[in-house]
Amino acid sequence: MYALTACRRSLRRPLLILGLALALLGGLVVMLGDRTARPASAAQSGSVGDVVFAVHGGAGNITRQNTPPELEAQYRAALETALRAGAQVVDQGGEATDAVKAAIVTMEDNPLFNSGKGAVMTTDAGHELDASIMDGRTLGTGAVTGVEHIKNPIMLADKVRTTSRHVFFAGLGAELFAIDRGFDLVTQDYFFTDRRWQSLLNAKGGKSEFNFGDLPPTTGTVGAVARDGQGDLAAGTSTGGLTNKPVGRIGDSPIIGAGTYANNRTVAVSATGTGEFFIRQVVAHDISTLMDYAHMRVDRAAQGGIDKVAALGGDGGVIALDHDGNLATPFNTTGMFRGYVTSDGGVVVKMFGDE
Amino acid sequence: MYALTACRRSLRRPLLILGLALALLGGLVVMLGDRTARPASAAQSGSVGDVVFAVHGGAGNITRQNTPPELEAQYRAALETALRAGAQVVDQGGEATDAVKAAIVTMEDNPLFNSGKGAVMTTDAGHELDASIMDGRTLGTGAVTGVEHIKNPIMLADKVRTTSRHVFFAGLGAELFAIDRGFDLVTQDYFFTDRRWQSLLNAKGGKSEFNFGDLPPTTGTVGAVARDGQGDLAAGTSTGGLTNKPVGRIGDSPIIGAGTYANNRTVAVSATGTGEFFIRQVVAHDISTLMDYAHMRVDRAAQGGIDKVAALGGDGGVIALDHDGNLATPFNTTGMFRGYVTSDGGVVVKMFGDE
Repeated sequence: MYALTACRRSLRRPLLILGLALALLGGLVVMLGDRTARPASAAQSGSVGDVVFAVHGGAGNITRQNTPPELEAQYRAALETALRAGAQVVDQGGEATDAVKAAIVTMEDNPLFNSGKGAVMTTDAGHELDASIMDGRTLGTGAVTGVEHIKNPIMLADKVRTTSRHVFFAGLGAELFAIDRGFDLVTQDYFFTDRRWQSLLNAKGGKSEFNFGDLPPTTGTVGAVARDGQGDLAAGTSTGGLTNKPVGRIGDSPIIGAGTYANNRTVAVSATGTGEFFIRQVVAHDISTLMDYAHMRVDRAAQGGIDKVAALGGDGGVIALDHDGNLATPFNTTGMFRGYVTSDGGVVVKMFGDE
Repeated sequence: MYALTACRRSLRRPLLILGLALALLGGLVVMLGDRTARPASAAQSGSVGDVVFAVHGGAGNITRQNTPPELEAQYRAALETALRAGAQVVDQGGEATDAVKAAIVTMEDNPLFNSGKGAVMTTDAGHELDASIMDGRTLGTGAVTGVEHIKNPIMLADKVRTTSRHVFFAGLGAELFAIDRGFDLVTQDYFFTDRRWQSLLNAKGGKSEFNFGDLPPTTGTVGAVARDGQGDLAAGTSTGGLTNKPVGRIGDSPIIGAGTYANNRTVAVSATGTGEFFIRQVVAHDISTLMDYAHMRVDRAAQGGIDKVAALGGDGGVIALDHDGNLATPFNTTGMFRGYVTSDGGVVVKMFGDE
């Protein structure tokens, strides 16, 4: 028995070396085959190349049939405004995190989107806002959840990132922090829109009762990803959550790794959808690790993340911008408000699944 | 030019097939070499085999020099109590999630640990508790943050997992949910211990001022990982957070993917340490993806997670139990309260770095 073990041990190293050599050779041949087929600078299938900035304004049941032309024009204009705000920062040599903030602020301020002004209402007829941001260069992050009196939650999330040893604040504590850091507070009426009020009343069905997660939700979120002139990536997400959501419910938007993630090694990701499934699958970080450890391209990795959400019964989408400027925007809903800007200044806006 | 492209295209498939074949052959040879060296059932270097249950009670400056013998005995006894509570559930055919809960409840109830009774105090001289749990079979999760009146936060986190379409609740909302689900509330004095009160006063240095993350923190957390008779994994974590922590500060303990993660494909992980760094590195999920996508063993993957925390300047540790029963417990502090139970019923408890 001892002799057998010794014999097996002595076999180990040559076998290992032979195996590694064969694997390496195989890898080189695969790379060669891959190179002959696709010039390195071209866009990858399932992704768009040369992108410097992208946004989303939520995924959901967005179809040509249920979108009046005037509303469609408003959404397209609002997405373009956000895209130009972000791209301008990049163009002028600004940082990716600043570009992300600049774009998200325009969407938070626009009542069309479920974030900041126009956010959906909780089951207690209030607004509780979540936001997060991540710097792919430093892995620095900031996030807030359940803030009720901050006009632009993404700005507060970024203030957490830049001025605290902590990275995530909730509710009252987030607002005490905001006051300490010089933020103005707004009262809840600032966020109010009749559209969201009617949605809440409709969801509650005439019963002034707390919902604790027993009713199906409707979703919406905004987010942005950027790649600046230094090649640094950043991602940010902001949301009002779900219509009639339970008080204190936290979705994926403020969770680093779930709704937001950025790492210069790989990719910047912002997600939207039924957040619970994105939390369970740690989607944004999963996309990064599929690229980092499984060597997937951004389009396959991002689709893999959405497939994992779908496998649990969830839906939504992501925008994922890799370190080479390739953007993937997979979603498993009928549509997703989205758009991007290329390095030559071209702006593309899309809403529906068939465009 | 067209002819050249066509020629390159025609070369692509045979090169791809040849490359894949070589890579496959190489992989088989490596596997063969690996098999000859190590019987599959043996413990891996850096990990312990045949483990069914493990806990931690926090990592930090835990040395023989600064631990009086009576206190050491108390900690060892408390860890053994937690281990036996969890292992008993597994022995009797219970589910991994139930084992995790059973062990963590004993630590939440024990004032030695920074969770439940005996939790540290916030900068506003209160207790804000965080907990989370994950089922590796379903990827079902539940988490709560900032709860102030729940005796056993891990039980509330599990109730979120099992009875809500949502997965994460904060503060008041978490407690409204608890009331709806029949939990009794306790008042804050329940959690009070003079030891934590003195620590708070010491940290505040005589100033009754809010801290917003401008002071260095001290840490402590409890957690458990289990592998039940069905081979299902689960992980859970519970904490009072940091002494003098800002109101509303959320650390890694309630964040799925950062402080807690379980997936039957790979591993169950519970973390402890300076939580912000675990959030930024998405440590628990990173360990899982290193195993899943980079095919690392649990010891290397877990060490990789701690190394990433250390690279940013953070410290702490994890307990990581893989789907084959191999346990790794790396930490970069001087000690970590920890222990495990093997399938034959053996109980091992450790505290210091040199054991």
